[in-house]
Amino acid sequence: MTEDRNRPIGVFDSGLGGLTVLRALHRRLPCEDLVYFGDTARVPYGTKGARTVRDFARQDAGLLVGLGVKLVVVACNTASAFALDHLQQILPVPVLGVIEPGVDAALRASRGGPVGVIGTPGTIGSGRYQEGLAQGLPGLPGLSPDRILVGECPLLVPLVEAGWVEHPATDMILETYLEPLRTGGVDTLILGCTHYPLLKGQIARHMGPDVALVDSAESLALAAETLLADLDLRRRDGLTGGERPSGSLEFHLSDIPWKFAEIGARFLGKPITDVRTVSLEEMEAAGRL
Amino acid sequence: MTEDRNRPIGVFDSGLGGLTVLRALHRRLPCEDLVYFGDTARVPYGTKGARTVRDFARQDAGLLVGLGVKLVVVACNTASAFALDHLQQILPVPVLGVIEPGVDAALRASRGGPVGVIGTPGTIGSGRYQEGLAQGLPGLPGLSPDRILVGECPLLVPLVEAGWVEHPATDMILETYLEPLRTGGVDTLILGCTHYPLLKGQIARHMGPDVALVDSAESLALAAETLLADLDLRRRDGLTGGERPSGSLEFHLSDIPWKFAEIGARFLGKPITDVRTVSLEEMEAAGRL
Repeated sequence: MTEDRNRPIGVFDSGLGGLTVLRALHRRLPCEDLVYFGDTARVPYGTKGARTVRDFARQDAGLLVGLGVKLVVVACNTASAFALDHLQQILPVPVLGVIEPGVDAALRASRGGPVGVIGTPGTIGSGRYQEGLAQGLPGLPGLSPDRILVGECPLLVPLVEAGWVEHPATDMILETYLEPLRTGGVDTLILGCTHYPLLKGQIARHMGPDVALVDSAESLALAAETLLADLDLRRRDGLTGGERPSGSLEFHLSDIPWKFAEIGARFLGKPITDVRTVSLEEMEAAGRL
Repeated sequence: MTEDRNRPIGVFDSGLGGLTVLRALHRRLPCEDLVYFGDTARVPYGTKGARTVRDFARQDAGLLVGLGVKLVVVACNTASAFALDHLQQILPVPVLGVIEPGVDAALRASRGGPVGVIGTPGTIGSGRYQEGLAQGLPGLPGLSPDRILVGECPLLVPLVEAGWVEHPATDMILETYLEPLRTGGVDTLILGCTHYPLLKGQIARHMGPDVALVDSAESLALAAETLLADLDLRRRDGLTGGERPSGSLEFHLSDIPWKFAEIGARFLGKPITDVRTVSLEEMEAAGRL
């Protein structure tokens, strides 16, 4: 059996959006091997019910555990919102979601609030960001509920996946979504979905230069680094340097969707090679792990 | 065992869009019992690969067969494009898709073309509408390929599901999608997705009063009536009138999604009551029928 610390980190997402998280992890932990699973056959999760998302997340995480990962990263905000506690109870490895790191980064970035969160209807409806911001974290006091503003943005995922980042309709839709947060005076805005970093420039333009944008991919990568160090699970050869300049990237998807090569490269920042397709039967079996 | 002709008609779709087809069937065949299955847990199909859509469609149709239907209607254009032949081979009951009825109606409505088709990337990419329009149907000559214009419209489904039918951004997106078809001079436009009838007014405004819009829901209902009559599968009590004014409607969904009540009522034209949720395990078992 491979020594625990030399096993890969597993990352799953509802689709390709989580590649922004993979990219951030690869940048921060360049020596670690990374295994990605995207549930492209059943994407999106953000408009679906809690039980469905939990059932899917159990299969997704089970698949990664079956591939021998040392840590499961839930890159999808909606899956983090509905399934993180459940996965932490049932999986034999540590599990990290994107919500707590995002809350941490937002509370550090804010100059007293209000703090805004944009996300899918599922993520916002779950109330997890709101709870996290209200409770605070060790050393970071929480916010009163009237200083937390949220926005459901169901159309941003399809716009990014259609490649319409620069289209004037996207600007019009962003204006509709962001106007209440801007006039509400937020000083910090959490981009609570893995697709939104691809709209960061447009969102920054709408919010103005004084609003800090918190990208959960970056915050998550930092949290993963800390957790692995705490658990003594960092790769040794990576830490001693020299011999192993770059960890491997491995891709598993439940479907090869429309414009996969183009959309995948946009999220990852480079072309995706060597993708393995996971069958329906394999997903079902993974949920029984 | 129930007499064949008294069994219900089964209708499935990737989600709630197929309710526009259910509605048209209920209007045209008011005495027939109708059973609807929407695969809301895995919607949309329109951006996913052929094999995935075929695997899903086999489960969806298998579920309806398990419920004792006498006819399976594939309301989803993408599933009709990728899976109709396959379902017709494996199912023990007749199967009707939406593409041939749409082609038939368009060839009848056209004054010589060009004919346009808008649909999801999957439907358009499959080439099924293009093949059908080029081949023609008995008594209806086909069109030369240069008189068939198509448009992939991946954003219209999310816009309709978000309830943004009247939003100016929807108009801007429609203009981008429809402009090449309008300037290409189409005299007939097939609305090749069950969501598009909800945008019929807006689409008509963009295309102008001289373009005939073909709604596949209406054409499908007519085709179902003809097929059932040909096979002697119409309900008898319905045909003799009086006693049985209205057939029942039954709903099965794989997820209760965001804004279900609101979106469902918009598609069906009235509130949906008594929904049964179908589990992942049940879907898997249905695919083995």
